Amino acid sequence: MTGKAGDQISEFHQQLPGPRLGVGMDCCVIPLRHGGLSLVQTTDFFYPLVEDPYMMGRIACANVLSDLYAMGITECDNMLMLLSVSQRMNDKDRERVMPLMIRGFRDAAEEGGTSVTGGQTVINPWIIIGGVASVVCQPNEFIMPDGAVPGDVLVLTKPLGTQVAVNAHQWLDQPERWNKIKLVVTKEEVKEAYQEAMFSMATLNRTAAALMHKFQAHAATDVTGFGLLGHANNLATQQQNEVAFVIHNLPIIAKMAAISKACGNAFSLLQGRSSETSGGLLVCLPREQAAKFCSEMKSQSSGVGGQGTAGGAWIIGIVEKGDRHARIIDKPRIIEVAPRGSQAANQENSPAPSPNLS
Amino acid sequence: MTGKAGDQISEFHQQLPGPRLGVGMDCCVIPLRHGGLSLVQTTDFFYPLVEDPYMMGRIACANVLSDLYAMGITECDNMLMLLSVSQRMNDKDRERVMPLMIRGFRDAAEEGGTSVTGGQTVINPWIIIGGVASVVCQPNEFIMPDGAVPGDVLVLTKPLGTQVAVNAHQWLDQPERWNKIKLVVTKEEVKEAYQEAMFSMATLNRTAAALMHKFQAHAATDVTGFGLLGHANNLATQQQNEVAFVIHNLPIIAKMAAISKACGNAFSLLQGRSSETSGGLLVCLPREQAAKFCSEMKSQSSGVGGQGTAGGAWIIGIVEKGDRHARIIDKPRIIEVAPRGSQAANQENSPAPSPNLS
Repeated sequence: MTGKAGDQISEFHQQLPGPRLGVGMDCCVIPLRHGGLSLVQTTDFFYPLVEDPYMMGRIACANVLSDLYAMGITECDNMLMLLSVSQRMNDKDRERVMPLMIRGFRDAAEEGGTSVTGGQTVINPWIIIGGVASVVCQPNEFIMPDGAVPGDVLVLTKPLGTQVAVNAHQWLDQPERWNKIKLVVTKEEVKEAYQEAMFSMATLNRTAAALMHKFQAHAATDVTGFGLLGHANNLATQQQNEVAFVIHNLPIIAKMAAISKACGNAFSLLQGRSSETSGGLLVCLPREQAAKFCSEMKSQSSGVGGQGTAGGAWIIGIVEKGDRHARIIDKPRIIEVAPRGSQAANQENSPAPSPNLS
Repeated sequence: MTGKAGDQISEFHQQLPGPRLGVGMDCCVIPLRHGGLSLVQTTDFFYPLVEDPYMMGRIACANVLSDLYAMGITECDNMLMLLSVSQRMNDKDRERVMPLMIRGFRDAAEEGGTSVTGGQTVINPWIIIGGVASVVCQPNEFIMPDGAVPGDVLVLTKPLGTQVAVNAHQWLDQPERWNKIKLVVTKEEVKEAYQEAMFSMATLNRTAAALMHKFQAHAATDVTGFGLLGHANNLATQQQNEVAFVIHNLPIIAKMAAISKACGNAFSLLQGRSSETSGGLLVCLPREQAAKFCSEMKSQSSGVGGQGTAGGAWIIGIVEKGDRHARIIDKPRIIEVAPRGSQAANQENSPAPSPNLS
């Protein structure tokens, strides 16, 4: 239910009613006629942003499921696939691309313990892929995203910078664009960052959802089209207590901060405004649980690309008393996250960054 | 889950798995982890086919709900709206058209006893509107579409010919096309037929779903993109018993049969192949119940356009022993259904047509 299309259609969005019960920013929660159960649903669809159709399918599915995971829900009863096949593709391309995309989507659904049963396909000028995830839950299966208290710690479970990585990768073939960033990054680094972004976007937030229960998370959301600060703000708005979220650290795929700066800050990455796709969960945890959450995330995360330094979670800020807004401090610490499989990752193998909270 | 886009993408459709449990052609039926309950879901989205945005919204919603109604389900726990806003529209058109479409969709959802909670909107070259209907059911709330027995009677709850009416209406402004049909129909008749088609498509099949229980229906499906015969065939294929469906009567919006013939049969309307949108339910009923079902449909149907001769249901055929196929007899009886509000309708006010079964 994230608003990828942005301001142009915000007025139409406003006509869509909010959740019938509860605050679920990422899902709708519908009380059922059957004792205490709720139907939790979410939908998302968008346009391909990576070149590999199989990975695109995985990313689309991970992105849909992520809204459930943000509520601490680890199960999904059904996934519908929504697909639009481009009329502009010739038959050969279509036969090559679409089955791979569907395969990726289904594989990710299977990894999420669900399967794709049903859906709808249409012909359209553009390719669109998305889905609808539905689950029927007992009350104890989900965590309403409104329980943050002063003293909580903010954790982020994937690095930022996916949009920058995807765009920089496209610029490898566009000399005019490439010339603007070539002083701060090598082609190899861009390729590694792109791979990392792809793996990261295709990784399910399911482990994080399970650990939210284990470590008594108070609230969470997933980071997507509005960027870290946009979603942090949305989450802050929903809180029952008068709290504010203060972000001190920004874990970012290595070199993406430099590219963003070299582009004259067009991405607003360091301001937390760069759009992410299938980003991590932003979780509010009791202070004494946060480090354990991060450490368990790190040991359990394998991701699509196998184990590596990029899997994990980072403490990025704190919850204090305030007026239900989120902000990033003036000079946040940038945590450069080395792509898994990169030389840097293989050399470093460093421990999780320390909280570094003021 | 109807395949509007047709053959071009049938191979991708085949990769979508069938229902996890049961035969539900129109819905997927997912057994839940909670005692005996099932999640029943369906999705549909398509492109506008009538000029009135409000009615288009109603039709889109009626079309989505219809898949639930075909299983005798009268409730819907949640509706998600899927919308794509055309990038080709200017701001003024967009602000005029989209709110009306959304309003129509929501009004129809409300008439169906549900509400629109959540959804997704994107920008796209074409307008797309659709939705996802979900309901959690006890086993006795739905009727699996596989129980037809020889001796059953086939009933259709809306007249055929919506596609012909929509196209003929477009041809009013295209002299070359209009010249081909002007000998068999007047402009007034085309306008009345178009109005009737619009009202019919916007009418929920909810009454029919409720009456399926009252009169012990054995199976049903809704008539959409594949036409009457296409969907009758699909339904026949699903039957547990070795049965065949034989169709004797074709209730068709008045004059649409003549237009179809004048077009050199391009629509294949009399062959049961003309595409319908948000068509009626095709219901298999015990012989002794069929007339009562039709009579109650007639007395209860009001439709969007108020009471009239077009509301109702028609006995169109029989179920006999056979090889799980459907066919239309050589010279089916055409039942000309007068548009509600038309002069013909006001004069006639005739009783429901008699079965006329061989």
